Order: sequence, then structure tokens, then C-alpha cells
Amino acid sequence: MKTILVVGIGTGSPEHMTVAAIAALNRVDVLFIPDKGASKADLADVRRTIIERFVTSAARQVSYAVPRRNAAEPDYGKGVDDWHGVLAGVFSGLIDQVPDGGAGAFLVWGDPGLYDSTLRILHRVERPIEVQVLPGITAVQALTAAHGVALNRIGEPVLITTGRQLGAVETDTVVMLDGQLAFLQADPELEIFWGAYLGTEDQLLIAGRLGDVAERIVATRKTARERHGWIMDTYLLRRR
Amino acid sequence: MKTILVVGIGTGSPEHMTVAAIAALNRVDVLFIPDKGASKADLADVRRTIIERFVTSAARQVSYAVPRRNAAEPDYGKGVDDWHGVLAGVFSGLIDQVPDGGAGAFLVWGDPGLYDSTLRILHRVERPIEVQVLPGITAVQALTAAHGVALNRIGEPVLITTGRQLGAVETDTVVMLDGQLAFLQADPELEIFWGAYLGTEDQLLIAGRLGDVAERIVATRKTARERHGWIMDTYLLRRR
Repeated sequence: MKTILVVGIGTGSPEHMTVAAIAALNRVDVLFIPDKGASKADLADVRRTIIERFVTSAARQVSYAVPRRNAAEPDYGKGVDDWHGVLAGVFSGLIDQVPDGGAGAFLVWGDPGLYDSTLRILHRVERPIEVQVLPGITAVQALTAAHGVALNRIGEPVLITTGRQLGAVETDTVVMLDGQLAFLQADPELEIFWGAYLGTEDQLLIAGRLGDVAERIVATRKTARERHGWIMDTYLLRRR
Repeated sequence: MKTILVVGIGTGSPEHMTVAAIAALNRVDVLFIPDKGASKADLADVRRTIIERFVTSAARQVSYAVPRRNAAEPDYGKGVDDWHGVLAGVFSGLIDQVPDGGAGAFLVWGDPGLYDSTLRILHRVERPIEVQVLPGITAVQALTAAHGVALNRIGEPVLITTGRQLGAVETDTVVMLDGQLAFLQADPELEIFWGAYLGTEDQLLIAGRLGDVAERIVATRKTARERHGWIMDTYLLRRR
């Protein structure tokens, strides 16, 4: 039996690391380090900084290339399923490098529970493993903290969704993974709290009436994306 | 100008503290410690443990009694508003104890953005202050981590709501602040992941088809509440 820790490392700032996550990284035999290619080198830097700053054990670091999802697959569900199948094979090979009775750790951006596939992929790995999850700060919390606002109104609900799924905003809504600028289709009277590269030194924040700030968000996003080669942004939409 | 830090301390485990939150507690002049009465002594213990373990500065600790909301007020919104007004007065007195140009910190259970009123109350304080927010691990993350499940399905939304607001479960839903056992009214075919005292040594977890485990949750909840004098629980409901 091997123990696999899935460790949330927060979003952007190495200082999002929790005491529990630091202890977790220091009690494993192997740290699995994804390589997502040069375009996301800033993210790799954060991960490297976390390991250099907080890991004092002699854990072995094993890098692995992250295969890309086949974006040409017209069926989104099948595309993701195929991709997870390939990743389950990659994960099996990684787990085989953990000594019997030992432990390995995956470092997951944000929290392993929110828009991350590591747990789902581990469920497909055909190896006798015990999985333990360490929670981490999500982009949702980094966003509201940076803007100094509460996520919810008093006693009211909040929806967390994707750009793909964003419909009419009846409930206060956080949108993640929006590559298609879904907010441009939303009611301009909504209030938006937008943030990118949250938690990092490059953090960008814009807030206001959607109709007033939407174009500024689009322009800021475009410039930043060209400069960094990638962007991760998140926003809260709500009635004013 | 004074700086007021609103610091998320996570839920239950002192090890939920982030590196940033620890640094924040160590750079203020005054730490504000709420006293919610004997019934929540376990929670006060966690806060005390956090300060003893992580605060190495000479920050002064100022305790304050937390007034209770008037539950007899029939208008919930007015009851909360009146209560926040009283708390704004209490907070003003606390802030007056911070030296000019200095900083004070409120320690907030979970994350300051999620079902917490500290930010709203600070907005009502008539003092020249700069508010900074440090994110913390929420009960939502502690719940999914403890059960080893993802919060969302692939690309699907999640609703975070209260027992009071729980309706028909169309979307995967996390319920917080449910003193009225709202899950008993939900479709028994739903799957539930329930947790109480999350992150602590007293953590309780139950998962399964709602119709199969609902009575067990009710009984477990009742026994635990009698034993501790209080309960904080959270659950995820979703279609199977």
C-alpha cells in the first residue's frame, strides 16, 4: 500500500501554503512535478519557489510532462475522458516510483476539490493506493480577499461556475475558467469584481458596473496575456 | 491611518493556517480575540492554540464579548442589521486601541469572504482605516478534502447556500449554516457528503444515498451536539 497526498498549494502566492500542506510535502518520499511547457513558466516558478522555500526533507522530485487534451475532439465529455485515461497511465508510472509503504505527493494549484482533475484521475489508477487530500486556498478566496469584499450577501447563496456554463445571473456568481469572455454577454447593470494572476506580484484587479468596465477588462486581459503568454482570471458578478 | 487585517484562520485545524496569515498575525500591534461564551469553548481553544503556536511577536491581545443577535426580531434582515450596528460600535472601540499608524487583526474562522460578517461590520465603522484581507481554508474545502471528493463535476457548477435557502437540488449544492436539518426535505435519491467539526480531532463524516444515511446523520448530530454543547456541520448534496 502506498499513500498519495494531493496537496492544495494555493493560487499564485507561495504564502498561500498552509502549515498542513508544508508538513505534507515534507513527509513524502517523492514529489511529482508537472511540466506544462514554457507558456506557463511563471506557474512552474511558483511551484519551484514553494519547494525550495518549504521542503527541507530529502524527497526525490520527479518531473512529468502533462499531455494536452485533444481540443479537436468535438464531444467535450469524451475529450476530457480520453485525456484523463492518458493521465491515469502517466500517474500509474509515477506511483510505481514510490517505494512500497511510502508516500508521494501531487502539488495542485488552488484546492484539489475545485476545477481540478487530480482526484478523478487517481480514481482511475489501478494501483493499491490510499489518497489523502490537503485543502488549499482557491482563486475564489484570493479574488474576494484582493477586492476586500465578501463572496456572499447576508444569508444569500453563491454559484461557482465556468464561462461555458454562465447563463442569466440570478444568483451572485463566481466564474472560473472563462477563456471565451462570457461576461460580455451578461447584463451591463451587474457589478463585476475581476482579478487575474491573483496572489502574484502581477495581480490585476478591476471592479465596477459591468457596462462601464467590460472593455477595460478585455483590453487589460489581452495585453497581460500577450506579455505573460498565458492568463488565469476569475470574477464575481452580482446585482447591485 | 490604521491598518486592520482580517485574517482567515481556517476551520478547526490550527494547521490550516497559511504562511501569509501567520506573518499577518505577527506584524500587528493588537490581536482582537472574540469571546463567544462557554458553549463554544472548543473554538476558542483553537484560536488560542493558533496564537500560542504561531505568534512570536509581542502583539497585545484584546478580548471582546460578542453580543448576540436578537433572535426574537421577526424580520431577519433587520435583526442582522441591528446586530451589525451594535458590533460596529464594539469594533470602533477595539480600533481605538490600535496606535496611530499601527495595525490590528481580527481572526476569522474559515475565510473572511464566506458567511462571515467582519468585512461588512468594518465598512460601518466610522474610523479612517485600511482593511486588508488574508484568505483562509473554508469548511467547504475541509469537507471535500476529508471525503476525498471533488466539489464539482467536470466543468459543472456548484451552488453554496444555507439551510434556510435550500430548495430543490438542481445543481450540486453545498449547504452551510443549517440548524434546521434542511436535508430532511431533500430528494432521498441524492448523494450526501456530510461533515461536522471538520479539521478537528472530533471530525465526523457520513456519506451515502441521502435516504439511507439521513437518520444516521440526525442521530450523530444530536449526540455530538449534546456532548460538545455546539455543532458546526456542512454537507454536499448531488445527484448520483
